[in-house]
Amino acid sequence: MKTRVITIGRQFGSGGREIGLRLAEALSVEFYDKQLVTLAAERSGVIPEVFENVDEKAASPWLYAAVDVNGITTYIPTSSNDRLFELQSNLIKEVAAKGDCVIVGRCADYILRNEDIELYNLFVCAPMEIRIARKQAQEKLDENDAKALIKKTDKDRRAYYNYYTNKEWNSPESYDITVNSSRLGITETAILLSKIFAK
Amino acid sequence: MKTRVITIGRQFGSGGREIGLRLAEALSVEFYDKQLVTLAAERSGVIPEVFENVDEKAASPWLYAAVDVNGITTYIPTSSNDRLFELQSNLIKEVAAKGDCVIVGRCADYILRNEDIELYNLFVCAPMEIRIARKQAQEKLDENDAKALIKKTDKDRRAYYNYYTNKEWNSPESYDITVNSSRLGITETAILLSKIFAK
Repeated sequence: MKTRVITIGRQFGSGGREIGLRLAEALSVEFYDKQLVTLAAERSGVIPEVFENVDEKAASPWLYAAVDVNGITTYIPTSSNDRLFELQSNLIKEVAAKGDCVIVGRCADYILRNEDIELYNLFVCAPMEIRIARKQAQEKLDENDAKALIKKTDKDRRAYYNYYTNKEWNSPESYDITVNSSRLGITETAILLSKIFAK
Repeated sequence: MKTRVITIGRQFGSGGREIGLRLAEALSVEFYDKQLVTLAAERSGVIPEVFENVDEKAASPWLYAAVDVNGITTYIPTSSNDRLFELQSNLIKEVAAKGDCVIVGRCADYILRNEDIELYNLFVCAPMEIRIARKQAQEKLDENDAKALIKKTDKDRRAYYNYYTNKEWNSPESYDITVNSSRLGITETAILLSKIFAK
């Protein structure tokens, strides 16, 4: 039987990660998020900080980037983005073939497009003011700093997605279902989605 | 008990109307679409052609518009848009209070935003090439004419929505759930949505 994989793209601060986690719990399936970076680092022998620095970012036009590794500024080749993308792609295909799961971010929708699996691609969004309030509460930031962080992270995610896929990030035509988490809230949105995917 | 109303916005050619119709059938609730224009005309004594001409269009900057009524060019006041919007708003509030239903288009999401009902706002989209193929088959048009018709109708709907609401048409933040009908097709998308709303 084919595995069923649900991928979740998300605007920063929309609660997409939490919704994915709760959906995975409700469906009793595996959940993959940032640990795909750690796994990629383990497999390649690259120190995790190098990959964490380039995770979900498009390749840079520069040859080297300055990264803080245990307080020491270290220069890493910017081709790390492409290397991480390749490693993560292989990992994502492996976990998708292994069993039903939810995968957050990392262009999983695109990476899995030709795999022999049952694939559903979701995207979670929310109005800017809701996301600002959420990030302010989570990160103890003032409004301007929260807004700047959201804009910067969204910009990185968009550049990363549009660079590695032939699709447009945040455009509902790129996904099967886009949910606005602000109306029902995180918990109720996860419940609503789990109704669709309950077997 | 509060009534539950599902509104459906849609890109032209995405199959949003059919999905709404099937969803209403699956849930055994009323379905409202173009008959809101006929009802508005009946109630006001205005001939239906006048309202059909301005349905889902923003108010024009001109005072009069030329309309074909039974082959005779007739000049109608362009304030008909606002008059139709007002009549439709009242009708939409009435039908929403009367019983569970699905309402397609006509800014119903915005009109009902403060009503004491259980409101869900959906939007249906699909990639342009899929919509072109659909309209070509439905209307026996060549590719260029189908594309022109889609662009024109989407433009009208966007202008109408953005004019009468304070929201942005086709933006997933304006709705609760946006579905891309191209992946699962009309029937399966309607089934998927009916799972969410099954009582």
